[in-house]
Amino acid sequence: MNYKIENGKLLIYENDDFKIIEDDLYITDGEITSIGKNASIDDSDFEKINAADHLVMPGLINMHTHAYMTPLRNYADDVDFAEWLFNRVNPVEDNMAVEDAYTANLLAFAEMIMSGTTMYADMHMFRCQSAKAAKEAGMRALIGRGLVGDDLYTDGYRRFKEALDELEEYSSDMIRFSFAPHAIYTCSPKFYEQITKEADKYGVLKQTHLSEGIIEVSDSLEKYGKTPVALLKETGFLDNAILAHCVQMRDNDIEIIKECGATVVTNPASNAKLGNGFAPVNEFLEAGVNLCLGTDGTSSNNTLNMFREMGLLSLIHKGLNKDSTAAPAKTVIKAATINAAKALGMEGKLGIIKEGAKADLIFLDLKLPNMFPANNIISSLCYSANGSEVDSVMINGKFVMKDRVLTTIDLEKVLNDSSKWSRFLK
Amino acid sequence: MNYKIENGKLLIYENDDFKIIEDDLYITDGEITSIGKNASIDDSDFEKINAADHLVMPGLINMHTHAYMTPLRNYADDVDFAEWLFNRVNPVEDNMAVEDAYTANLLAFAEMIMSGTTMYADMHMFRCQSAKAAKEAGMRALIGRGLVGDDLYTDGYRRFKEALDELEEYSSDMIRFSFAPHAIYTCSPKFYEQITKEADKYGVLKQTHLSEGIIEVSDSLEKYGKTPVALLKETGFLDNAILAHCVQMRDNDIEIIKECGATVVTNPASNAKLGNGFAPVNEFLEAGVNLCLGTDGTSSNNTLNMFREMGLLSLIHKGLNKDSTAAPAKTVIKAATINAAKALGMEGKLGIIKEGAKADLIFLDLKLPNMFPANNIISSLCYSANGSEVDSVMINGKFVMKDRVLTTIDLEKVLNDSSKWSRFLK
Repeated sequence: MNYKIENGKLLIYENDDFKIIEDDLYITDGEITSIGKNASIDDSDFEKINAADHLVMPGLINMHTHAYMTPLRNYADDVDFAEWLFNRVNPVEDNMAVEDAYTANLLAFAEMIMSGTTMYADMHMFRCQSAKAAKEAGMRALIGRGLVGDDLYTDGYRRFKEALDELEEYSSDMIRFSFAPHAIYTCSPKFYEQITKEADKYGVLKQTHLSEGIIEVSDSLEKYGKTPVALLKETGFLDNAILAHCVQMRDNDIEIIKECGATVVTNPASNAKLGNGFAPVNEFLEAGVNLCLGTDGTSSNNTLNMFREMGLLSLIHKGLNKDSTAAPAKTVIKAATINAAKALGMEGKLGIIKEGAKADLIFLDLKLPNMFPANNIISSLCYSANGSEVDSVMINGKFVMKDRVLTTIDLEKVLNDSSKWSRFLK
Repeated sequence: MNYKIENGKLLIYENDDFKIIEDDLYITDGEITSIGKNASIDDSDFEKINAADHLVMPGLINMHTHAYMTPLRNYADDVDFAEWLFNRVNPVEDNMAVEDAYTANLLAFAEMIMSGTTMYADMHMFRCQSAKAAKEAGMRALIGRGLVGDDLYTDGYRRFKEALDELEEYSSDMIRFSFAPHAIYTCSPKFYEQITKEADKYGVLKQTHLSEGIIEVSDSLEKYGKTPVALLKETGFLDNAILAHCVQMRDNDIEIIKECGATVVTNPASNAKLGNGFAPVNEFLEAGVNLCLGTDGTSSNNTLNMFREMGLLSLIHKGLNKDSTAAPAKTVIKAATINAAKALGMEGKLGIIKEGAKADLIFLDLKLPNMFPANNIISSLCYSANGSEVDSVMINGKFVMKDRVLTTIDLEKVLNDSSKWSRFLK
């Protein structure tokens, strides 16, 4: 299906700034093919979409989450980290079956779509389920099987084999794969070296959790005599890697990350909620590090709503720096769109409304009271939107939600199937 | 109309804790008259409301806002404080007419209702407009005309007369009034003393902005040799007063506030957004200060969504204190309900589901993906709700929103009327 989107306001990124224009948008075969009144295009077979009173903007890209974790939503809150991980999260993960993970992923996508996310970067534990569900739901994904071990080819091989299997079975233009060693406290430096070589060999991206908690850093200093960042630099892993969290930066960590061309994915809700604190976002921005945004999983957030995360990113860093100009809306929206595309090597193709870009678009109702008056729509995305303004969502040129109705996910069935989770949820 | 609310889950507060029960709720003449299956009640003339798959909870109480400021939503962001106040906010306020304020209030109520707020504490600049709009919309209100001056009976009298006029004209069970001196940098200590006596005389509450920014405190120390809190204690004003902000606490300020039985209304979004920082919420809680929650106005937030504010309150203080157990959901929900009732002298009457309490209720859809599974509904209110789950709202026993349709506010007319704002919005 081809679409002509009429009468909408479009969020355009040009010369490192955002602006709003009112113009038509032509979508052909999943791509934006023309912006503006274009008399030369024969639009007789284009379905016309009336986007009056709506903002049409690129879908948000959640650069760090664990979609399979939705059964753990609001399951372990207001408790300390050890209780959270060992007594709550781990027992559930141990008792989830493959089909539970599949249902959990669909529930996650329903939430993502309904709050304007069109792509997610995932770390998972259940072979092929993230990819299978994403394929069915029409979600765009960067998927990584979580990997742990001392040696990729001995104790780490079972999981790595799963990663290779799903890569072979599900790789597509919509679903890409990464290698995702879990963290320096579950993977050895040798393991990170091996992963780096395999990622080069397969031409896939790398992602990991890094410097999330204080103990991770103190243990690394004690065991290796260096920070987690410095340790991973030596393994070669940091080059162009996607690094989730990076809350506890020490010494010249930020400089190293910048030098290696790595991307930092900040997770404000999760880092705050688990008591890890606030990442040095201002310092990342000043150093020119590519900063993206993620929700982390529902066990530590407890929502996958990127609009909430955008607001948190800006407000926390304004408050922390006692500076009303810190982390402005423009910077925050870039983190959720443009910078994600950069991290994925898809600049100009994702996270932007531009000729030749993928048609991953969200439609926001500007007549809702919290968006009105529309004095500054760019500000509103960061400071007054809550995600429920998104009433339609297109991914790769296909509507996955139209007027708040999901078209690729049977939500009622998902909710019914999830009743099986009661056997492992206390 | 009397109602019997069936099949819902009810949020109950008992023994300083929240719990969820499944039971019926009877509403007669604006009050909760019975909870539970009650065969002795003849419910033949009760309208039955099916609340299956819904949480029924007390409406949220926004204890500090300026409802007339909605024209300024997303109007002055990412700028420093002086630019914000003098070049953006003040010129608009100066050019707003009385009828603009009326429309602005209705827009604010639409947003409040749609995100689950049933009562607001207001400081305003436009005589009777907050009250007039609240009366028409069926909002519950605590209203205060903002007051400034050196002497209440000379330079401060015009505004005080307006306060007395609206008190006389609009006072009701639904709409109560307060005296609201603006701040110590616009009102003299003598003025606060005079207000205190007048408040006693009229039997109304007192509210003010206090210790919001750093300059307010340093100026007070320089001019008076004491903190703003210590200064106001001397005037007698602090006794049982409602104090907005209280971000910059020094010396024994918190102790003084506790001793005086004053209530602190924290405004996490506004304080962060304007670069004033984070209030010492943990310290207030440890000292046993009555802590409430407010959004402040849309010029500094930029939304009136109390669910967003609840999430911010918890997350910011967990992150700030590097403590995952800080500001837990229970504490946050209390701030938005129980503690507000306490500040208003309405314990057991507002902010609670209890026999004899006012029927100010909100209905949340628990089948939305971000609320599912409902492992811990109390947690979900703080960590995964965004306010759009509220699909019906009852105030004083009347539905002001039913299935997302506002019944007392003509939103289309409000949006049309607000087109006149373009003359003063640049």
